[in-house]
Amino acid sequence: MKNLAEVFAGKRVLITGGLGFIGSNLARELVRLGARVAVVDALIPEYGGNVRNLAGVAGKIRVHRVDVREHVKLAKLVRGQDFLFNLAGQTSHMDSMTDPQTDLEINARAQLSILEACRQHNPRIRIVFASTRQIYGKPDYLPVDEKHPLRPVDVNGINKLAGESYHLLYHRVHGIRSTVLRLTNTIGPGMRVKDARQTFVGVWIKQIVSGEPFEVWGGEQLRDFTYVDDAVEAFLLAAAREEAPGEIFNVGGTPPVTLTALAEELVGANAGGSFSVKSFPADRRKIDIGDFYADYRLMTEKLGWKPKTTLRAALKKTLGYYRKELRHYL
Amino acid sequence: MKNLAEVFAGKRVLITGGLGFIGSNLARELVRLGARVAVVDALIPEYGGNVRNLAGVAGKIRVHRVDVREHVKLAKLVRGQDFLFNLAGQTSHMDSMTDPQTDLEINARAQLSILEACRQHNPRIRIVFASTRQIYGKPDYLPVDEKHPLRPVDVNGINKLAGESYHLLYHRVHGIRSTVLRLTNTIGPGMRVKDARQTFVGVWIKQIVSGEPFEVWGGEQLRDFTYVDDAVEAFLLAAAREEAPGEIFNVGGTPPVTLTALAEELVGANAGGSFSVKSFPADRRKIDIGDFYADYRLMTEKLGWKPKTTLRAALKKTLGYYRKELRHYL
Repeated sequence: MKNLAEVFAGKRVLITGGLGFIGSNLARELVRLGARVAVVDALIPEYGGNVRNLAGVAGKIRVHRVDVREHVKLAKLVRGQDFLFNLAGQTSHMDSMTDPQTDLEINARAQLSILEACRQHNPRIRIVFASTRQIYGKPDYLPVDEKHPLRPVDVNGINKLAGESYHLLYHRVHGIRSTVLRLTNTIGPGMRVKDARQTFVGVWIKQIVSGEPFEVWGGEQLRDFTYVDDAVEAFLLAAAREEAPGEIFNVGGTPPVTLTALAEELVGANAGGSFSVKSFPADRRKIDIGDFYADYRLMTEKLGWKPKTTLRAALKKTLGYYRKELRHYL
Repeated sequence: MKNLAEVFAGKRVLITGGLGFIGSNLARELVRLGARVAVVDALIPEYGGNVRNLAGVAGKIRVHRVDVREHVKLAKLVRGQDFLFNLAGQTSHMDSMTDPQTDLEINARAQLSILEACRQHNPRIRIVFASTRQIYGKPDYLPVDEKHPLRPVDVNGINKLAGESYHLLYHRVHGIRSTVLRLTNTIGPGMRVKDARQTFVGVWIKQIVSGEPFEVWGGEQLRDFTYVDDAVEAFLLAAAREEAPGEIFNVGGTPPVTLTALAEELVGANAGGSFSVKSFPADRRKIDIGDFYADYRLMTEKLGWKPKTTLRAALKKTLGYYRKELRHYL
């Protein structure tokens, strides 16, 4: 595995969605590695951005409060950067169904603008794009590898697939060095907990830390979970890889658990708490993907990456953070 | 096969892209079948719309000069319609690479607006969407059936795939009765001939009718061709099918021929003419899909549709039209 400090020390790095959950954790780690970090974030209230996410390192990071839809501002931002971690996105599946146009603007149109800005103003930039397991849709088989057909089941999945496809196309046709990471559920400090727009686990965390019972919908679906530090390492290793841009990697996580088992694990990690199991709401069932867990062997083989954090440890660290920090995330 | 006059007589039908090549031929046939036809077209100079395409029937068709990107106007247009043939699109692969945002606006964003307008103002409308073989990308096998993986190789293909996906999603989640037709090369009276933005065959027709030699690029690629009357029948049969909306059908055509063989056939159909074979330009090679021809057996099985026009007959009819009409298309 590469020495990441050697790769990133002194390098100029831009992170879109850099006040968000994964983006901010990535920014912190890059500062630690000696990079010159700038983040772009629109701080849209319904999205993942939160200034608290950079508490303690804010002085070392340049923050641009820019919406990636403001395409005229992108040229200036990408110019001179060595790396672009492109994590700006609308993540809520339900919001993508009630407001499909906004999802398209951010997850598809703005991605084209970012790539056009790179092509015109910084074609040597190295890009890692945050894609999602959502583009696979309902799995034909498990675990899902990168060759699985792409059949998104909601507007968010359709637009994220377009966004991912532009990145791969700009590599193939224009030589822009893009790599795609398809993420599964990621959890950890900095995640959105005020509602389920980023992940349902956020709401569970908020409830249990507040001493209130939480609700499990369905309960039998299998899911895998990536701790944010592991996800951050995946982004760094992908960016550091000089061979073969244009690749696609699943970022997997823990062995799969049912949502009920996850709920029990959360109660155990918290040493207390309670939950109820409800049937799945009809509007969500229509866009549900059923069981999912990722096959991440390609990432292990090519990049030496493996998730290191157990589910119990991930939940404990996350709970520890929100016990202190919850009020900044409500 | 259905009696199409029974299905469409007296029915209200809206055609987006209705002054374009296939749209206008469809409008004519629907008038003949007794439908009340309205067309929407922006008459963008680089696209397929041409008022000449409705010469002789213009008085029987309501023409709305509206751009489908003007989303506030769509509600009024779709309200009260029984059928929507959704053919508005940007078709040039090269233009999609030099101006990707416009391609996205028309082929993806406007499609969402059209579907939202239907969902809100006319959820019982029956939609047939004009998709394209381009979304398959470079074929893994030939002929290409509807199960072939979708791996578009240019911005146009990515955005058309998003547009198609929205139609299928709105069926699955919102019950909007959409059917998708994936078209291959279509030729016939009304096609754009002033340049290659719709199909390279257009330029060949213009050159040969003008008594000038035309250029064949590459020459060895295999392609299939649908005569426009056959394509029109495919749209009508798909709309008339009451069972199982949400389906996808390839609209195929003639047995495949190499481009050189097509050029020879065109010279034969014209009883004269000449061409030269040039190597494929580099910028086009990057987004070329190689050989393509469609497996349309599903459409034959489910809808009783088959292409009826031979390549020679299709070329003769097309040449006959442009010998008289060319000046209206330059």
